Amino acid sequence: MHDDPTIGDVRAAAERIAPHIHRTPVATCAAIDHIAGAALHFKCEHLQKVGAFKARGATNAVFSLAEDQAAHGVCTHSSGNHAAALARAAALRGIPAHIVMPSTAPPVKRAAVAGYGAAITGCEPTLEAREATLARVQEATGAIFIHPYDDPRVIAGQGTAALELLEQAPGLEVVLVPVGGGGLASGTTIAVRAASPETEVWGAEPAGADDAFRSLRDGRRYPSVDPRTVADGLRTALSDRTFRILSGGLAGIVTVDEPTIIRAMRLLWERAKLLVEPSAAVPLAALLAEPGRFHGRRVGIILSGGNVDLDRLPW
Amino acid sequence: MHDDPTIGDVRAAAERIAPHIHRTPVATCAAIDHIAGAALHFKCEHLQKVGAFKARGATNAVFSLAEDQAAHGVCTHSSGNHAAALARAAALRGIPAHIVMPSTAPPVKRAAVAGYGAAITGCEPTLEAREATLARVQEATGAIFIHPYDDPRVIAGQGTAALELLEQAPGLEVVLVPVGGGGLASGTTIAVRAASPETEVWGAEPAGADDAFRSLRDGRRYPSVDPRTVADGLRTALSDRTFRILSGGLAGIVTVDEPTIIRAMRLLWERAKLLVEPSAAVPLAALLAEPGRFHGRRVGIILSGGNVDLDRLPW
Repeated sequence: MHDDPTIGDVRAAAERIAPHIHRTPVATCAAIDHIAGAALHFKCEHLQKVGAFKARGATNAVFSLAEDQAAHGVCTHSSGNHAAALARAAALRGIPAHIVMPSTAPPVKRAAVAGYGAAITGCEPTLEAREATLARVQEATGAIFIHPYDDPRVIAGQGTAALELLEQAPGLEVVLVPVGGGGLASGTTIAVRAASPETEVWGAEPAGADDAFRSLRDGRRYPSVDPRTVADGLRTALSDRTFRILSGGLAGIVTVDEPTIIRAMRLLWERAKLLVEPSAAVPLAALLAEPGRFHGRRVGIILSGGNVDLDRLPW
Repeated sequence: MHDDPTIGDVRAAAERIAPHIHRTPVATCAAIDHIAGAALHFKCEHLQKVGAFKARGATNAVFSLAEDQAAHGVCTHSSGNHAAALARAAALRGIPAHIVMPSTAPPVKRAAVAGYGAAITGCEPTLEAREATLARVQEATGAIFIHPYDDPRVIAGQGTAALELLEQAPGLEVVLVPVGGGGLASGTTIAVRAASPETEVWGAEPAGADDAFRSLRDGRRYPSVDPRTVADGLRTALSDRTFRILSGGLAGIVTVDEPTIIRAMRLLWERAKLLVEPSAAVPLAALLAEPGRFHGRRVGIILSGGNVDLDRLPW
C-alpha cells in the first residue's frame, strides 16, 4: 500500500493554496513555434511566488498540517527554491521554519530564506551532513520534515500547475515537464491523466543527469551520480515514490545535451522575453532535440522557475 | 482644429487589433512592492507581439487604412520596435512595408524586420538622411507613411494597453508610463482620463533625455538634443501633437538618473522575472527616485518592451 496522491488530492490542493499563490499566465510565442514546428503554450511558473512552482507544493504541505502538527513548525534541507518556498509558506501560516543550508549556498538564496523569517542552520555541502544536521534540528525543535519532492502533499501541490494549464490552454496533445527529483513530473502526471486522459505527458532531462531516463528504461531506480548540467534544479534523483508514479504515467523521457539547453534558454529570453532558469528550458530543449516527435502538435510546457544568477549567464 | 484621438478611437482600436495582438498579463511582485512602498501592477507589454507595445499602434494604423490607401503599402523610418511592428502588421494585412533603417541598426533588428517580408532601405544614421530616404521611398512606391508616434491612429492603438490594464487591475490610483516621443503616454492619458477619471497619469523620463519634462514645465516644446541614456527607446522628442495631449493630460513627469534606471531594470529581472528593456524600467525608477509621491498607493506601470541585447546587459 502507498499513499500516492490522487487527482482528488490535486484538486483539494488547488483550492487550499489558491489564496497564497499566483495563477500564473500562459504565454505563446510565434517565433519559437516557427523554430520548434509545434504550437507551444508556456505555463509561466517563473512568475510564481518565490520564482518557481515550488511555492505550490510547499504551501500545500504547510496548510495541510493539523494544528497540533503545525505547532512546532516545519523543516527541510535545501539550497534552492524549496527552502524559500517552505519558509514563505510557514511565514504565511505563522509557524516556525527551520532550514538546513550548505555553507556553499549562494548568499542571495540565504537572504531570501532569512527574509521570510526562517531559522537557518549551516552545514557542510554533502548529503550526509545535510541529513545529519536536519535530524538534529528535528530532534531539537519537533518540526515536521517537508521533503522537497518525496511527499504526497508536495506532489499534489505541484500538480496544480498542470490543472491550471489544461484550463488555460484547452486541447493540449502533449505536456512537457522537466524531471529532477520527480515531484513536478509526478504531480503533472497525476493531474493530466485524470483531467485530460488523451494528453501525453513527456519528461525532459539533461543527458548529464539522466538517472530518471535510465531508471524508467531499465525498470529499476538509479541514483544520481556526479550529475553535470547547467540545469541545477535537475541534479537530484527520483525517490521510490516518484519512480513509481512516473513509471506508470509518463509517455517517455527525452534527454538533451548542454548546448541545446542553453540554446533553448536563450530563445526563451530573446524571443519570448521569458526569464527562466536553465532547468526550465530543458523541455523546450527536448522539443528542439527531437522535433519529429512533437511536430505540428499542440504542446504545453511548464516553465518551472526563473531563479538565475544574472551575473553568470551561461552564454 | 486638430484630429487628436478620443476615447472612442481607443475603444475602436481595441476592437480592431484584438485578433492580431496579445492581451498581455498583469504581474505583481511582493518583493518589489516592499522596496517601492506601493502596490504595483505591471502591464507586461514586453510579452506583446514583437516584444513591445508598438505592435498595438502599428496594427491599428495598418488596419485603419481604406483598401485604396492600403494598396501601395506603408512605410516608416525606424531602427527599433516600430519598424518590426509595422512590418508585422503589413504582413498580416497582406500589403507591402518599406522600412528605412540606418546603417547602424543592429543586425538582429534588421533580421526581425526582414523576417516579416518588409523591404529595407539603408541610409546614413542621421535624421536628415532618414527623412530624405523615406521621402524617396514614398515617392517611388506611393506607400503611406506611418509615423512611430505622431499619428492619431498610432496613439489610439497605444492607448489600448491602458484600457486593458484598467480592466485587469481595477481601482488604480496612479498609472505610470515612460515618455519618449509621447505616443504611449498620449494614448494612455486619453484612455485613463476617460475610462477612470480619478486615476492620475504620470510620465517618467530619463534625466539625460528630459526634453518632455522641460517642455511641459515651460509650456513650450524643446527638441531632444544629444540625449544620453541607456533607455534607448526614450531618446526622441515630443511632436506638437503629443506635446498638446500630454500638456492637458499628465499629472507630471518624474525624471530619473541612469543608476536608478539600471537598478529598476535589475529589480524587475531579478525579483519579478520580468525581462524588460531599459526604457521599460524607467517608470519603476521614478517610483524608486520619488517614493514619497506614490507611497502606499495602488499603481499601474506599463512595461513598454523587452527587446534587449543579451550580450550587453547594463550591469
